[in-house]
Amino acid sequence: MDAVTRETLFNRVRSWTLEAGAFIRNKINDPLTIKTKSNPKDLVTEMDRKVEFFFAAKIKRYYPEHRLLSEEGYGDTLTDSSGTVWIIDPIDGTMNFVHQKQNFAISIGVYEHGVGEIGFIYDVMNNNLFSAMRGNGAFKNARKLSPLDSGKKLHESILCLNHYWLSENRLVDEKVMQQLIKDVRGTRTYGSAALEFAYVAEGAADAYITMRLEPWDIAAGRIILGEVGGKLTDIHGETTEMLDRTSIVACNPSIQANLLEYLSKAKK
Amino acid sequence: MDAVTRETLFNRVRSWTLEAGAFIRNKINDPLTIKTKSNPKDLVTEMDRKVEFFFAAKIKRYYPEHRLLSEEGYGDTLTDSSGTVWIIDPIDGTMNFVHQKQNFAISIGVYEHGVGEIGFIYDVMNNNLFSAMRGNGAFKNARKLSPLDSGKKLHESILCLNHYWLSENRLVDEKVMQQLIKDVRGTRTYGSAALEFAYVAEGAADAYITMRLEPWDIAAGRIILGEVGGKLTDIHGETTEMLDRTSIVACNPSIQANLLEYLSKAKK
Repeated sequence: MDAVTRETLFNRVRSWTLEAGAFIRNKINDPLTIKTKSNPKDLVTEMDRKVEFFFAAKIKRYYPEHRLLSEEGYGDTLTDSSGTVWIIDPIDGTMNFVHQKQNFAISIGVYEHGVGEIGFIYDVMNNNLFSAMRGNGAFKNARKLSPLDSGKKLHESILCLNHYWLSENRLVDEKVMQQLIKDVRGTRTYGSAALEFAYVAEGAADAYITMRLEPWDIAAGRIILGEVGGKLTDIHGETTEMLDRTSIVACNPSIQANLLEYLSKAKK
Repeated sequence: MDAVTRETLFNRVRSWTLEAGAFIRNKINDPLTIKTKSNPKDLVTEMDRKVEFFFAAKIKRYYPEHRLLSEEGYGDTLTDSSGTVWIIDPIDGTMNFVHQKQNFAISIGVYEHGVGEIGFIYDVMNNNLFSAMRGNGAFKNARKLSPLDSGKKLHESILCLNHYWLSENRLVDEKVMQQLIKDVRGTRTYGSAALEFAYVAEGAADAYITMRLEPWDIAAGRIILGEVGGKLTDIHGETTEMLDRTSIVACNPSIQANLLEYLSKAKK
């Protein structure tokens, strides 16, 4: 993708994302139709579908050669990462959208041959837009984000983690995870993977750990985090690819080795 | 306290709180002097002291007969709840203030003979002011908050809880707490007791459970929550008083019995 094409694309994604956000804000107090998906905690609303359809239609019109990987069914079935691929979560944090009417995000990553080029995470209700173009840095609204503090210590860190991983589960030893949360300064749970990536990128949290995410939960966060020097692997310390469903350790680089040591003890 | 006196007082607290919030926002990017208190996770900054001093000076000038109970040392030593007492946490969520520069609150409760009359919780960076006068309802900015949904079920609830209570600790059986987080729809941790009370009051969360809070963590939340029909007890289901250091179950009334049942099994 040449520089002009990429910049045009960036500006279009930005403007469509803001437009979709304004649409959601206008409808935020309308009655909701809520369905559950794989389990009773996995919610979906008409708004998820509407926002995804909005982007799918734009892509089809402006970029018919691009492919779309997305959560709610308007996308393509992808088996490889060739060409230009949009990865969209129309509303990341649907439970927050339903229960709180806040703390959810539109998450969009655009990849070329598997390399993240453009990422947007839009905290719709707080009107905060996180964005990045590969090699050009990451931004929160108009402010360029600083590279992550390279002197951060684990015991001074704030960790984002779902409570579930501290209880008995199939993937990690809860006792090790319990020790980890005692060894950091604080733990937080916001209920939106995209926002948790954004908080790590802006230094509001120092790590986000989770045992399973879909590609659309990760796509934008990977690009934004990469631009501030953040690290992203699975819990085994392995690089993850654009299409992977995987565990995630997204963090400040200075605590990565420490976190992976805990996780190597925890993994089952 | 007669109605006119109370309304004047309400308007003054409101205006001073907004003034203190604007002061904090103006200084939010200044370098911080951070100290630890009882333990390395218990932080205090010059800003905590400055904001508390601001209120202490106002109270002394306008209401010299009132007493002040507060976190950072400008208050009085109280052994009873007689007269008019201000209970102030100048920055609730100091760790968030330091690490995130967001998600902290000014918390102020004014009590007369132990009865909460006026409460304010000010989410400074999002400029959201929660307020209540006893008997007049609770507000988020200019919007009156609705009474809490009386048909809420535990398995559809969002619970605010620190991760620590899911690991081995002296106060509750972590296994019971782990079962509880599996039985609710979602769990969140925001790192500010005052904001967690406010979220329960606005229905963004359905319960906030914690094993120890100081009076200034609770004072405003109790009043605001009470005005929307929220319930507040300790984990034994007992009423708590203005000066108590105590455990807290603050919740939607329809899930209170359920939560107390888990906690009666969990308590040590």
